[in-house]
Amino acid sequence: MTTPDRIRIAVIGAGRIGKLHAEHLAARIPGVQLAAIADINLAAAQETAARFNAPVAAVDYRQLLDDQTIHAVVIGSPTDTHAEIAQQAAAAGKHVFCEKPIDFDLKRIDQTLAALERAGVKFQVGFNRRFDPNFRKVREMVAAGKIGAPHLLRITSRDPAPPPLEYVKVSGGIFLDMTIHDFDMARYLMGSEVTEIYAAGAVLVDPAIGGVGDLDTAVITLRFANGAIGAIDNSRRAVYGYDQRVEVFGSAGMVTVSNNTSDTHVYSNAAGIHSALPLYFFLERYTESYIAELRAFVECLRDDTPPPVTGMDGRLPVVMGLAAQKSYRENRPVRLDEIEA
Amino acid sequence: MTTPDRIRIAVIGAGRIGKLHAEHLAARIPGVQLAAIADINLAAAQETAARFNAPVAAVDYRQLLDDQTIHAVVIGSPTDTHAEIAQQAAAAGKHVFCEKPIDFDLKRIDQTLAALERAGVKFQVGFNRRFDPNFRKVREMVAAGKIGAPHLLRITSRDPAPPPLEYVKVSGGIFLDMTIHDFDMARYLMGSEVTEIYAAGAVLVDPAIGGVGDLDTAVITLRFANGAIGAIDNSRRAVYGYDQRVEVFGSAGMVTVSNNTSDTHVYSNAAGIHSALPLYFFLERYTESYIAELRAFVECLRDDTPPPVTGMDGRLPVVMGLAAQKSYRENRPVRLDEIEA
Amino acid sequence: MTTPDRIRIAVIGAGRIGKLHAEHLAARIPGVQLAAIADINLAAAQETAARFNAPVAAVDYRQLLDDQTIHAVVIGSPTDTHAEIAQQAAAAGKHVFCEKPIDFDLKRIDQTLAALERAGVKFQVGFNRRFDPNFRKVREMVAAGKIGAPHLLRITSRDPAPPPLEYVKVSGGIFLDMTIHDFDMARYLMGSEVTEIYAAGAVLVDPAIGGVGDLDTAVITLRFANGAIGAIDNSRRAVYGYDQRVEVFGSAGMVTVSNNTSDTHVYSNAAGIHSALPLYFFLERYTESYIAELRAFVECLRDDTPPPVTGMDGRLPVVMGLAAQKSYRENRPVRLDEIEA
Amino acid sequence: MTTPDRIRIAVIGAGRIGKLHAEHLAARIPGVQLAAIADINLAAAQETAARFNAPVAAVDYRQLLDDQTIHAVVIGSPTDTHAEIAQQAAAAGKHVFCEKPIDFDLKRIDQTLAALERAGVKFQVGFNRRFDPNFRKVREMVAAGKIGAPHLLRITSRDPAPPPLEYVKVSGGIFLDMTIHDFDMARYLMGSEVTEIYAAGAVLVDPAIGGVGDLDTAVITLRFANGAIGAIDNSRRAVYGYDQRVEVFGSAGMVTVSNNTSDTHVYSNAAGIHSALPLYFFLERYTESYIAELRAFVECLRDDTPPPVTGMDGRLPVVMGLAAQKSYRENRPVRLDEIEA
Repeated sequence: MTTPDRIRIAVIGAGRIGKLHAEHLAARIPGVQLAAIADINLAAAQETAARFNAPVAAVDYRQLLDDQTIHAVVIGSPTDTHAEIAQQAAAAGKHVFCEKPIDFDLKRIDQTLAALERAGVKFQVGFNRRFDPNFRKVREMVAAGKIGAPHLLRITSRDPAPPPLEYVKVSGGIFLDMTIHDFDMARYLMGSEVTEIYAAGAVLVDPAIGGVGDLDTAVITLRFANGAIGAIDNSRRAVYGYDQRVEVFGSAGMVTVSNNTSDTHVYSNAAGIHSALPLYFFLERYTESYIAELRAFVECLRDDTPPPVTGMDGRLPVVMGLAAQKSYRENRPVRLDEIEA
Repeated sequence: MTTPDRIRIAVIGAGRIGKLHAEHLAARIPGVQLAAIADINLAAAQETAARFNAPVAAVDYRQLLDDQTIHAVVIGSPTDTHAEIAQQAAAAGKHVFCEKPIDFDLKRIDQTLAALERAGVKFQVGFNRRFDPNFRKVREMVAAGKIGAPHLLRITSRDPAPPPLEYVKVSGGIFLDMTIHDFDMARYLMGSEVTEIYAAGAVLVDPAIGGVGDLDTAVITLRFANGAIGAIDNSRRAVYGYDQRVEVFGSAGMVTVSNNTSDTHVYSNAAGIHSALPLYFFLERYTESYIAELRAFVECLRDDTPPPVTGMDGRLPVVMGLAAQKSYRENRPVRLDEIEA
Repeated sequence: MTTPDRIRIAVIGAGRIGKLHAEHLAARIPGVQLAAIADINLAAAQETAARFNAPVAAVDYRQLLDDQTIHAVVIGSPTDTHAEIAQQAAAAGKHVFCEKPIDFDLKRIDQTLAALERAGVKFQVGFNRRFDPNFRKVREMVAAGKIGAPHLLRITSRDPAPPPLEYVKVSGGIFLDMTIHDFDMARYLMGSEVTEIYAAGAVLVDPAIGGVGDLDTAVITLRFANGAIGAIDNSRRAVYGYDQRVEVFGSAGMVTVSNNTSDTHVYSNAAGIHSALPLYFFLERYTESYIAELRAFVECLRDDTPPPVTGMDGRLPVVMGLAAQKSYRENRPVRLDEIEA
Repeated sequence: MTTPDRIRIAVIGAGRIGKLHAEHLAARIPGVQLAAIADINLAAAQETAARFNAPVAAVDYRQLLDDQTIHAVVIGSPTDTHAEIAQQAAAAGKHVFCEKPIDFDLKRIDQTLAALERAGVKFQVGFNRRFDPNFRKVREMVAAGKIGAPHLLRITSRDPAPPPLEYVKVSGGIFLDMTIHDFDMARYLMGSEVTEIYAAGAVLVDPAIGGVGDLDTAVITLRFANGAIGAIDNSRRAVYGYDQRVEVFGSAGMVTVSNNTSDTHVYSNAAGIHSALPLYFFLERYTESYIAELRAFVECLRDDTPPPVTGMDGRLPVVMGLAAQKSYRENRPVRLDEIEA
């Protein structure tokens, strides 16, 4: 399939993330036409299609896969459908942009990656934070040697509020749902693979989260192949908003990024000096990175270059999440090769 | 003319600012269709029209005024054409969004405002900074009484580099070209009119600017009707980039905003702690405020409400600029009513 | 008089500033012995002497001037006594450290400086802010050419609360009592003399201040011999505490200093991000600079070097204060040579 | 022994920390007389005594213990002498201020604490950071419930440069020499005991440190009795200077403190925005906290109140250091009761 002037892309899933991608494809990504929306809830598909001028709304995504004018799909459906849809899209010759995680099961991930590779289609995983200007700057400085050899990594990643309990139950747990972004960030920033993980966790935010077998607070220690050590801390509820900071420390210096705010105001009164809270949550905080990741996907389709976030980049954070789960359950450091074994 | 589903807007002027507005109308302003581009340089009009999918490109803006399907025009042509185009647009029943300044001549401004009022069309002046989240926050806090009664205003407004000398010659001078934004900001933030101005100026950046009769450095003192005092400082060249800060101090507190940067990185090495420069210039710094001002214009067309930046808001900063010029020439404070007399 | 191992210094005036100097001489200045305290209120002199282990307390400072074992005096008595005491101290061969201002009257200042010079004693004026690490750093960077040629100076100087009305009446007015420090700072930071001043003032904090003929809010424009322009803003009441910031902007960059705080804490809760107020007032803010100025005085006695703040440094800010008063009264810029004439 | 007007205190050890305490006792601590200095290097004792006007210099500290006019001793000698000197001082009825750690051996610590208790003398351990205004503010806010229930603690503690290798050999290792301060800080800030520790360590700064069996880089996970989790990161070399930051995060907010700097200057040039490095090392950074801890010690002698840092406060960080050592060696989390067993 040769690449046309306007690449036609369909979105599968008309939930929050699907709508977001649809909006961006409709207005913010040059050289693209939003071709169709599919959702098992047809009304949702239709509403999203109408809102963003997509000509087609379908209840069954396979209808879109059969459409020869569609070049690529963005998979934004529930996680347990990612692998199957990706494999069918590959079989239909569609390029695939897939939300994280690919799956919770390494075997299904491997089957999916194999299918995608056999089909020769492009595959990009939605680790959008890599496209955030703050984290990108940190990566660039680390890669440019500005901090020398990396010694320590610190990631603070805290949500403003826990997801609904119904979601927590099927989320795969905090390590595979929330920390997975930080695991990706750790690999991305350090340019080195993690070899061992120790996870300390707790239920401090809401006992109901513990009631369904999950955690809401965690500190995770990472050992990297390059000898460096990392620490991630997570909470499901920071009352002051979405807290997303990283720090890389090395032999020649340190680079740190802090939170984005809605404005730079500083208010001084008799009680103190006050400034704006962090942007509330991922939709506000990472808007531009969601756009940038899709732009990068479209560019690699157009230029026939490798996607910037590969299938392996999608797979390894799942391995890390499984290692963190095992570490927490057994209260001991777990090597990643234990998970692969 | 009833307002349709999609308001059709033409852009007059395909220079830097015209292209910017065209791009935003094409992609970032809901409920709008970019209907046409006019420029005396037809090639420029055509190129801009093609790039942003405008169906019509014209060399003569009057062709667009004759088009009954066009509801409004955005005037982004050179300043000396604003008044005439605005008057003709009014006569043709078009709503008008006009870049600042309306004109350098108060009489022509008054004729233009009268023509717009007679025609009953909406008129908004492009003081985009009012739509910047930082300055808007300051205004909101002042208006909400958070700082009590305003006592002092400080505006720092410095460009990263002077404009080309050819532009300086026709710019109207620093007070009408550059400080005019700060004059608008002063009125906007304080919610009180300026009654007297003292301008101290100098040529320190480039003697060539002095050679064509202009200044490149200034400190301007403002007296407000509410008793408060303000100070603006300007420079045509801040080597560290576009410097746009304001501070309002009052009986109950102070609010300050600082510059926006491309990212929040902080880099620590043996030489010091280093962070990102301000966004380079107005196109980078005020992107969102350019979009927001057009959204507000479109909303007031759709909802038949008054534009948020009126003709009088366009006129008064010109009075202030003329007062500053007179103050500088005569080295004495000048009351605004001296200019009106 | 040869300089002994321990320089014996007497303090004249046991009010707030006299006590401060006595405390520092007693404990924080190496190589010094606090020899005596004088105050027209003998009890105050005795209490201060007892507290800081000074062997002598006197009601009449002339008793101390007669004491051949005393090498130097620190004058911390009311302003209207500075000139006479300094002249008598000079006649007695004592080195003199004198609080600012020397006097409000230029003729008396000139007589005093002449008397000090004739006597061949050292004379240092208490412009302590020059010894503050923040302002010193700015001066060093400007002097080292880090900002290139200076173009703009901004000084924000606001007190946390007005002085008692009884003090306001005899203070010499805001320009000679409060702004005088900023006038000194302007000369110090820029390394260039001020040639013209325009002062805009208002009574916004407390009408009672206006009732005794003074102002409480001001913006002062300075023209420097090197072509640069400066702006000082003053308020007698910043509800958030003592606000002491300066900024020097030049052809190659800018250097800014902000307020000192009691600690670096940042508190984030659902309402915002909050941090510590500035240190409350000059005693808290400038403790170290008061110590440093006395250390410098003692060093120049010991090493027989010129004092770092000269008689002329004490005189010129008074000229500037008088020019600001005249400018405010006549609402026009006033050249400093008008005051000297 | 009744408490006299001036408490006479002797300093044992005339090395870096001994000299520091001697200087403070001589000049910065009210109500105290520096009575004597002892050091096995008599010349060092004599020099320090002369410099700070101590009337006695001794080669044998037992001479000071025999002096009935001395009320208390400050032990600043090498760590392996602390326990014995403290026990002898107790036997001699002297109050004791002892540098950290008391010892590396829990049994010797317990004997020492028992001896001190039997003697009925006051005993304070030199965890000076508790007296730093930043950390104190954090503790106060946590204790006041400002952050709600504590969930997460983060401590960054990095030295500007490793100590000499000769010192590293006898230092007890990074956990007992450097992290011990952070262990104390963890207990102090959280107001809860640590129950389990997992230490990941590495040699990344200097292989010679590994050559003598020590580490130079570490990330330590702490489990607290209250359910919270903490992470400490250490490095022996931060090229940008002494990095001392803490953060406590809880159900209602977060409080963070950052580094102190020599001044607040911000320098903007074409290359970026630059500010001052952290104060270089502990002598610069913690000057005021060294003074404050001795003031507190003197106050508890005078007022007969319990010292603010107790023997148990000195003992528990050693237990934590031993647990960290064991955890690192066995690469598993270690409960503190394993060390006590």
